Amino acid sequence: MTIAVLSSIARPILEPRLPDWIEPRWFATTEELLEIADQAEIGWFDLYKKEDMAEAARRAVRMKWLNSIYAGLEHMPLALMHERGVVVTNGAGINAITIAEYVVMGMLTVAKGYREVVHAQDRHEWLMDSPGKRELFGSKALLLGMGAIGSLIAERLAPFGVEVTKVRRTPGPDTLAPDAWRGKLGEFDWVILAVPATPETDGMIGAAELAAMKSDAVLLNIARGTVVDQDALVEALKAGQIHSAFLDVTTPEPLPADHPLWDLPNAHVTMHLSGRAQDKMFVRSVDRFLVNLERYRRGEPLEPAVDLLRGY
Amino acid sequence: MTIAVLSSIARPILEPRLPDWIEPRWFATTEELLEIADQAEIGWFDLYKKEDMAEAARRAVRMKWLNSIYAGLEHMPLALMHERGVVVTNGAGINAITIAEYVVMGMLTVAKGYREVVHAQDRHEWLMDSPGKRELFGSKALLLGMGAIGSLIAERLAPFGVEVTKVRRTPGPDTLAPDAWRGKLGEFDWVILAVPATPETDGMIGAAELAAMKSDAVLLNIARGTVVDQDALVEALKAGQIHSAFLDVTTPEPLPADHPLWDLPNAHVTMHLSGRAQDKMFVRSVDRFLVNLERYRRGEPLEPAVDLLRGY
Repeated sequence: MTIAVLSSIARPILEPRLPDWIEPRWFATTEELLEIADQAEIGWFDLYKKEDMAEAARRAVRMKWLNSIYAGLEHMPLALMHERGVVVTNGAGINAITIAEYVVMGMLTVAKGYREVVHAQDRHEWLMDSPGKRELFGSKALLLGMGAIGSLIAERLAPFGVEVTKVRRTPGPDTLAPDAWRGKLGEFDWVILAVPATPETDGMIGAAELAAMKSDAVLLNIARGTVVDQDALVEALKAGQIHSAFLDVTTPEPLPADHPLWDLPNAHVTMHLSGRAQDKMFVRSVDRFLVNLERYRRGEPLEPAVDLLRGY
Repeated sequence: MTIAVLSSIARPILEPRLPDWIEPRWFATTEELLEIADQAEIGWFDLYKKEDMAEAARRAVRMKWLNSIYAGLEHMPLALMHERGVVVTNGAGINAITIAEYVVMGMLTVAKGYREVVHAQDRHEWLMDSPGKRELFGSKALLLGMGAIGSLIAERLAPFGVEVTKVRRTPGPDTLAPDAWRGKLGEFDWVILAVPATPETDGMIGAAELAAMKSDAVLLNIARGTVVDQDALVEALKAGQIHSAFLDVTTPEPLPADHPLWDLPNAHVTMHLSGRAQDKMFVRSVDRFLVNLERYRRGEPLEPAVDLLRGY
């Protein structure tokens, strides 16, 4: 029997489908997890508090495979797990469809000034003109990060007539190399951040990049708050240096109630909900976990495996 | 010289491009238009108040061609103009891109519960879960009205993985005949109204149709308020008979401040802004008008000419 330490949240849909060679140990609380983590050969340790999740991984000295619903695992002891030879599968792609839909929603709501429409309805006021007058049609987007999410965003934007430029190592049509996009920042109406959080992407959008953007450009961040120098962004938004920012992610999360981003008329804060705006997340994760369990039994590679040295 | 009576709103971009065989008479107010309408061989009489616009058309006894930026001209004396042999060109297609974008925005904002996200930002509250958990992916839409707007909506929804069923006379794949959609209403997550306002479409969605829809179906109306029995809709929304309605159009417009639609948590009122959420409307209209002027001079057919008997 193989011991798997698993979150009780997944139990209702996972337990009936577990193969008989798995001995599940369910945890309902952080304390329970920390108690039994060292028994796990297979672990699914997801917790909202990332430090506790990392501590459980450190304690899991027998673990061979760690699974997670989260795409970003930069808070985990990746070097330690690499050293121990743990295979880590993450949630990359599980939320990709939902997040891609959220990004298009963000672009459209900013383009049409939809937040003002919501507020007008709150006031029972019939607006005589649209508070936003942009079309996606004919606009240009720079898409940083061409993982599962980036690809789905690009597909969805194509029939809108948005010219999407991708940034990636592999050259191709409508593609800029990783060192070339900064020089072209002034050409885009939309700058979409869908990169993984790594030391390389940390603060990749700072004061200089914001200054290089068009004054009516919109920044959309669905990556991680740390990818943007948030203080510089607040200054740029206050000064009207760019049109606006649609921020699914911030630093820190939750954003403190007194943070200036909440009240800026050109900051749209969506509370890291982009991936949660679906009801299939657990079902998709469980389906994938079960496929990987069978692969694990056969000694086949698990997917998607995190490159523990690159961090994604 | 051919006398054209034209709205001053278009003057800055139209006057420099008018051919020399046109003698323009510009009007700035309703009174000025009503005064000079009878001089027009060519008229562009757009006014916000539709009764005044109709009255100007009735007075324009010399008119051979009436142009409008509006797609819906059901308020105009179409039978009288038909009798007088007036050719009428409308704005069909001018706003189509913008409206198609607005419809996708409507679907996405309802799917993700975005209005609640806006209100949470107003309160500086970091939501821990998404108020809406729908995906467009894998959902089914019924699209009533396959003019320019309907086609553009269908194109944009395709990469989202929305299965779009069209209603039109010409049979084809994913198409229902005009008499067949009522029997299938219970199959769709989205019912999108993009039909022209004609006697045939008047009240086409009433209590029976609303009752036949899925309880989590969303109705989107970008056609005309009259296409829906609005009292029946209010009752259906109050009773939770359908999930919600995204209403760009209402009866009447503007909607009175005490109308129940404003406060219903599942009614989204967007004040007929869908076509206005662009800055190219006048440019596109003027471009088209100038092409038609040249056709008019040569005695060629004007486009798009309204079928005055069918009304669109």
